[in-house]
Amino acid sequence: MDQATMQQTLVQMGERAKYASRALAILPAKAKNDCLLAMAEAIENGAEEIRLANEKDLAAARVSGLSEAKIDRLTLTPSRISGMAEGLRIVAAQEDPVGRVLSRNVRPNGLEITKVSVPFGVIGIIYESRPNVTVDAAGICLKAGNAVILRGGKEAFHSNLVLSQILDRTATACGLPGGIVQLIPWTDRAAVPLMLKLDQYIDLVIPRGGESLIRAVVADATMPVLKHYKGVCHLFVDEACDQERALDIIENAKCQRPGVCNALETLLISRKIAPEFAPKFAERMAKCGVELRGDEEFRKLVPGAVPAEESDWSAEYLALILAVRIVEDTSSAMEHINRYGSHHSDGILSAVPEHIETFLAGVDSAAVYANASTRFTDGGEFGMGAEIGISTDKLHARGPMGADELTTYQYRIRGTGQIR
Amino acid sequence: MDQATMQQTLVQMGERAKYASRALAILPAKAKNDCLLAMAEAIENGAEEIRLANEKDLAAARVSGLSEAKIDRLTLTPSRISGMAEGLRIVAAQEDPVGRVLSRNVRPNGLEITKVSVPFGVIGIIYESRPNVTVDAAGICLKAGNAVILRGGKEAFHSNLVLSQILDRTATACGLPGGIVQLIPWTDRAAVPLMLKLDQYIDLVIPRGGESLIRAVVADATMPVLKHYKGVCHLFVDEACDQERALDIIENAKCQRPGVCNALETLLISRKIAPEFAPKFAERMAKCGVELRGDEEFRKLVPGAVPAEESDWSAEYLALILAVRIVEDTSSAMEHINRYGSHHSDGILSAVPEHIETFLAGVDSAAVYANASTRFTDGGEFGMGAEIGISTDKLHARGPMGADELTTYQYRIRGTGQIR
Repeated sequence: MDQATMQQTLVQMGERAKYASRALAILPAKAKNDCLLAMAEAIENGAEEIRLANEKDLAAARVSGLSEAKIDRLTLTPSRISGMAEGLRIVAAQEDPVGRVLSRNVRPNGLEITKVSVPFGVIGIIYESRPNVTVDAAGICLKAGNAVILRGGKEAFHSNLVLSQILDRTATACGLPGGIVQLIPWTDRAAVPLMLKLDQYIDLVIPRGGESLIRAVVADATMPVLKHYKGVCHLFVDEACDQERALDIIENAKCQRPGVCNALETLLISRKIAPEFAPKFAERMAKCGVELRGDEEFRKLVPGAVPAEESDWSAEYLALILAVRIVEDTSSAMEHINRYGSHHSDGILSAVPEHIETFLAGVDSAAVYANASTRFTDGGEFGMGAEIGISTDKLHARGPMGADELTTYQYRIRGTGQIR
Repeated sequence: MDQATMQQTLVQMGERAKYASRALAILPAKAKNDCLLAMAEAIENGAEEIRLANEKDLAAARVSGLSEAKIDRLTLTPSRISGMAEGLRIVAAQEDPVGRVLSRNVRPNGLEITKVSVPFGVIGIIYESRPNVTVDAAGICLKAGNAVILRGGKEAFHSNLVLSQILDRTATACGLPGGIVQLIPWTDRAAVPLMLKLDQYIDLVIPRGGESLIRAVVADATMPVLKHYKGVCHLFVDEACDQERALDIIENAKCQRPGVCNALETLLISRKIAPEFAPKFAERMAKCGVELRGDEEFRKLVPGAVPAEESDWSAEYLALILAVRIVEDTSSAMEHINRYGSHHSDGILSAVPEHIETFLAGVDSAAVYANASTRFTDGGEFGMGAEIGISTDKLHARGPMGADELTTYQYRIRGTGQIR
């Protein structure tokens, strides 16, 4: 397809989405939830249609020699299909994120100023692999009153297309304008930069995937982007702390699921307890099969550790590797984290309340922990319900993002003829 | 100065600001307020130093033939100097925007998750003319716990430099690290693109000035930008409303200060009352010296009006010109506003509660009004205290931005050994 035709189609999609978003913005919560429930049913009733489309993707994946792991993520089993439907029902049951009164203020002149949460309008989601993102993302966007334009990975194209069509025609059947859920209908790579020029129609883009995808989106986007770079998470073992508990937390943060963004990547140990703690810690990590990369001081205590290089302090291993450094105290731990970290999730393991409070206020990260595993940085664990991602940005949303974070706000001012 | 030296100096400024910002982040409210009060005193005590620097700028301005209006804006009279000091005292007296508990949640596993407002870190402000912005912007940034890197207009360079130095050395005298307030120490245009590459140090940039300045900043910035494009503000005169009051509101919104972003630019009139209302309205506007540019239907009622062209519907005149269109009803008014407006400030003049509520919820603007002048979109009028600008963005801050909007948030999670 030539660029001009593609661009024209994208502009039409943008216009449809914008138009639909205005209808969504004034839709009562019950109507949105009824629509989400109808979508859940439609996904279940469409299981056969979905499986046929998914078969096409799987056949192509086998021909192109996709890895078994990727083929598994691509496969829509009956239980995964009902899982998507169930996800929509959970979103439907959540509190409405739109229309929350964030503040209210009557001015001396009688003007009543109410700050109210409202939808963004149109959200673009760019994602890589699993087709369930199509349904999850559309559901949470609809909950927050937004129309969505989706761009999924090419491996899941047929599955994504059928899913988005089922969702959009259900919305239409519920009386909404068409264009609430639209998938970019080509796998052509050129579509993404064109989509990212639609700032007249798309209010916000959320890329979900690896760092290179995200950097490409940020470079090309003309609209704001909410993004998640890497998670280089730290724990600091303070001079006074329950060392056995610290070992359990470290093991959990490093090993329970090493491939995720909230897993531990660097451990900092207070110099005062290092001689006692380091060997115990090394023993526990050895049991878990974790490779340690330590600074010189740590390697004196644990001679088997690999020498850490400067690059290790900012590495997101996503594997059973852990960088280890001995530091003077809470202040030097904070300095290391603020300098080398990715401002994602960092914690202190300590029994000293003042150290804990200093650390919590002084570490510039989305989530700061005292005496718990960093693995809790997650919309579900935070009690947010559905999550659209974790933001490492500081503007607008930081940390796990749920439906609330897919709203902006508006000031509604009621007067009786006030003039300046 | 060559680019490389400039860049090196900017990186050093960024590092100083970042370092200083970490000290600011954990500073108690009282210490920040004491520092603001000390700054106010230092500005007053430094009046002579400030006037001497300002004289240099004024001399250069006269040589380069700056307009009288611009020279006036540049001039720091004794009363303007005490005005800047007074501004700092007002900011000091405001509530602390940092450490507000935005939500608190104890999870079933006992984790206590608190969402707390925290400073951004380092804010860059790029502005054009008046030297008082140096003090206002630094004061509000400090109140919100942020270090600031300022880039002022070249006409005010010497005034800005002295003001920023007085502020920064006062901060140091109050025990803070140097680098809380820094001004880019050259007038060279090349400094701005270099500053906008410092995303490692500057968390947020706020440009204040004309549209061309803002577009240039957005194009070059690698960090998030909070910006204000134009204000194409509308009022819609509904079929049922107090027409005399409507005329007063229209006059105020259009004429009280036509050169500002919250002034009225387009009036929409309900078809049902147009034959009665349009002539009265035209008469009032004629008295105020306002040129009317109407659609065909309006011109049948007011033959003297200039024909409006398509470009008039999105024009920000900032002058005594008003575009006028007859529309069917509230829905068509909303459609016009959402399509042609700039999502700044738009209002309905109506006696019908359902029309008002539909309009307030359905118009996609930062501030939506019922029966009041759009001129109230302003930090002071909203009761925010000091204002750093008005955002036409949807991400993070919308409408007037005060010290609260110069904070982000952080999740602080307190546990007792929780693991996943």
